[in-house]
Amino acid sequence: MASSLENLSLQSKEDNNEDDVVDPWNVSSKNQTGIDYNKLIRRFGSSKIDDELLMRIEAATKKPVHHFLKRGIFFSHRDLHSILNLYEQGKPFYLYTGRGPSSSSLHIGHLVPFIFTKWLQDVFNVPLIIQLTDDEKFLWKDLKLEEAKALSVENAKDIIACGFDKKNTFIFSNLQFMGECPSFYGNVLRIQKSVTFNQVKGIFGFGDSDVIGKIAFPAVQAAPCLSSTFPFIFGNEKVPCLVPCAIDQDPYFRMTRDVAPKLGYLKPALIHSSFLPSLQGAGTKMSASDLNSSIYLKDTPKEIKNKINKYAFSGGRETVEMHREKGGDCNVDISYQYLKYFLESDEELIKIEKAYTSGNMLTGELKKILIESISKIVKEHQTNRSKITDDNVKEFMTPRKLT
Amino acid sequence: MASSLENLSLQSKEDNNEDDVVDPWNVSSKNQTGIDYNKLIRRFGSSKIDDELLMRIEAATKKPVHHFLKRGIFFSHRDLHSILNLYEQGKPFYLYTGRGPSSSSLHIGHLVPFIFTKWLQDVFNVPLIIQLTDDEKFLWKDLKLEEAKALSVENAKDIIACGFDKKNTFIFSNLQFMGECPSFYGNVLRIQKSVTFNQVKGIFGFGDSDVIGKIAFPAVQAAPCLSSTFPFIFGNEKVPCLVPCAIDQDPYFRMTRDVAPKLGYLKPALIHSSFLPSLQGAGTKMSASDLNSSIYLKDTPKEIKNKINKYAFSGGRETVEMHREKGGDCNVDISYQYLKYFLESDEELIKIEKAYTSGNMLTGELKKILIESISKIVKEHQTNRSKITDDNVKEFMTPRKLT
Repeated sequence: MASSLENLSLQSKEDNNEDDVVDPWNVSSKNQTGIDYNKLIRRFGSSKIDDELLMRIEAATKKPVHHFLKRGIFFSHRDLHSILNLYEQGKPFYLYTGRGPSSSSLHIGHLVPFIFTKWLQDVFNVPLIIQLTDDEKFLWKDLKLEEAKALSVENAKDIIACGFDKKNTFIFSNLQFMGECPSFYGNVLRIQKSVTFNQVKGIFGFGDSDVIGKIAFPAVQAAPCLSSTFPFIFGNEKVPCLVPCAIDQDPYFRMTRDVAPKLGYLKPALIHSSFLPSLQGAGTKMSASDLNSSIYLKDTPKEIKNKINKYAFSGGRETVEMHREKGGDCNVDISYQYLKYFLESDEELIKIEKAYTSGNMLTGELKKILIESISKIVKEHQTNRSKITDDNVKEFMTPRKLT
Repeated sequence: MASSLENLSLQSKEDNNEDDVVDPWNVSSKNQTGIDYNKLIRRFGSSKIDDELLMRIEAATKKPVHHFLKRGIFFSHRDLHSILNLYEQGKPFYLYTGRGPSSSSLHIGHLVPFIFTKWLQDVFNVPLIIQLTDDEKFLWKDLKLEEAKALSVENAKDIIACGFDKKNTFIFSNLQFMGECPSFYGNVLRIQKSVTFNQVKGIFGFGDSDVIGKIAFPAVQAAPCLSSTFPFIFGNEKVPCLVPCAIDQDPYFRMTRDVAPKLGYLKPALIHSSFLPSLQGAGTKMSASDLNSSIYLKDTPKEIKNKINKYAFSGGRETVEMHREKGGDCNVDISYQYLKYFLESDEELIKIEKAYTSGNMLTGELKKILIESISKIVKEHQTNRSKITDDNVKEFMTPRKLT
């Protein structure tokens, strides 16, 4: 373990010297075009999702790949080929993703992994585990246990509203599930027995003045990668797992990939997304704690319109004349960037890009298209969410057999 | 927190320079008479149990104090006066003690805190919580989870055989109970959010190469000091707690006493025992892993007789003639020391001391008395234990209301 984790440690030291900071608690870039994801792949030692892999996914699933894959929004992976091998051989695997419930409302950036995970569940038809790390939020934020628990329930509603298949999805809050299933604590301990303070120091940058809860926590996020954490789903079978997540969560799974084989499990496979930038520009990801950096799933049409018009960083020129002449810059334009995430039609997106780059389309027109797209998605989400009762949440969050 | 815990840290550094080593994992002394408990009181900053306190206990309970108290076997405390105040005012408190199940059989040294705790439960008639730290043993020893769990059940039988009142005693294994009661994990996290790595480093001597499970564990032993860990017993009431334990466990509770007030609880009160020395002499405590240092509760009469005759360190003189002339030394004689623990009659004990010190009684005769005493206790224990079924264990270990 020492050698490989020392390696990780060096990588994370290197991170500090880069313009881009990407770890579970900070994501920022000094470049106006945002994080250099190709560099990140080299630094993290993951693999790029290339055209060949996309073709393989289409061949295996017999379905067109999601536009998040085509457009490089999910751009990096670890061992995805192994998962496709299993799928092609008709062998089981499961999906595991999660969310740290730090606010009562998700923003549209939070939707990205869930939209994609739902697509994965649909095309592969496999069990899905969703962890709500309310214990992590309790440890890192100025939150009481009860507040963190309540946020879990609120966030679960937003997640369920994404349309997951109830028969095949188990959502759990750590604060609750730890007290419901001894296998969870058992696997947390197994992992905690295999990782030293030196190692979490290297991977996560913890220091001597950090509280012991933070130091111990990575094992709690790692444990769901071991199928024996969920005996009511997997029995005694060792089922491999694929983790779709934003790339800032990779350190947790680098650690897990190091530990899992020692505990007799396959390394979890990963598929990484980039970050939806904040309205203000590509230098940071949306933050749930800065109201004006994000569009929330609770926002009204008016709020969405105002935020985009007022805050969405523009790649347009200073004057209409200059814009008509030189055209806008899609690489830094936040409205265009958001459309890459949320406008499904490739045809339309290309049309918009051409029109904006050529100067035919003005920033106001581009923003209008974005406002319409986002408002539609948010409204749909709100409609779905309003139908979700506490009983629905309970059903999803009850430890039980999946189909 | 920093200041008081820094203090503890200094104390524990001082420990390293002393001849006596006393921490949760090591107990040893370079002196033939064993650990200097008065020095330990000064180093740990606890209070000596003096005659005045003994009289107060007798006055409050209207019963003679246990011979463990009279003979200084339970010799130190923290805030015992506060517990007596509560008792006198008719206010509730509870007892909390524990055991790390590192072997399938307890030895007679392990009985000491349980015999005393039973006495406390009898005279005060209060709820008793017993924690089996199988998670700790899993983390510290070369044990599998399943092995640690199995040892918990075996040890629970030995504990139940001490005669605890089922209606008022809850025994739990951490590996099991963590998965049964979300309040336990909640309180573990509350404590883990209040203690830094620097602090556990100072108190327990953890280092950077220790696994994160060890670093996080002290919170698990601390949590049962908060009555809200057991909502099925105490509801929402904040009930103070008294911890009878061997003094090597004091570091856990020094930490807990520092944290509890920040979480809105009274500091746990403590009453500390000395260690039953090993057969080989007072320099170390009995060890469950050295078969010949201990008398096990599973030993046969023949084994007990052989071990005592062969290994019990003698304070007698080299020849019978010299012994008759100069007398034996009770201060280093292990048989006499054991009788101080296990011979209830003060009268007899004084008679033996006089006879041995004066040279009238030879080592063989003293050993014979000890063999009889211990054999009787062990046989009684074995009889009691043989009647305990798995169902009995289950009853004690089921989270439930106590009376």
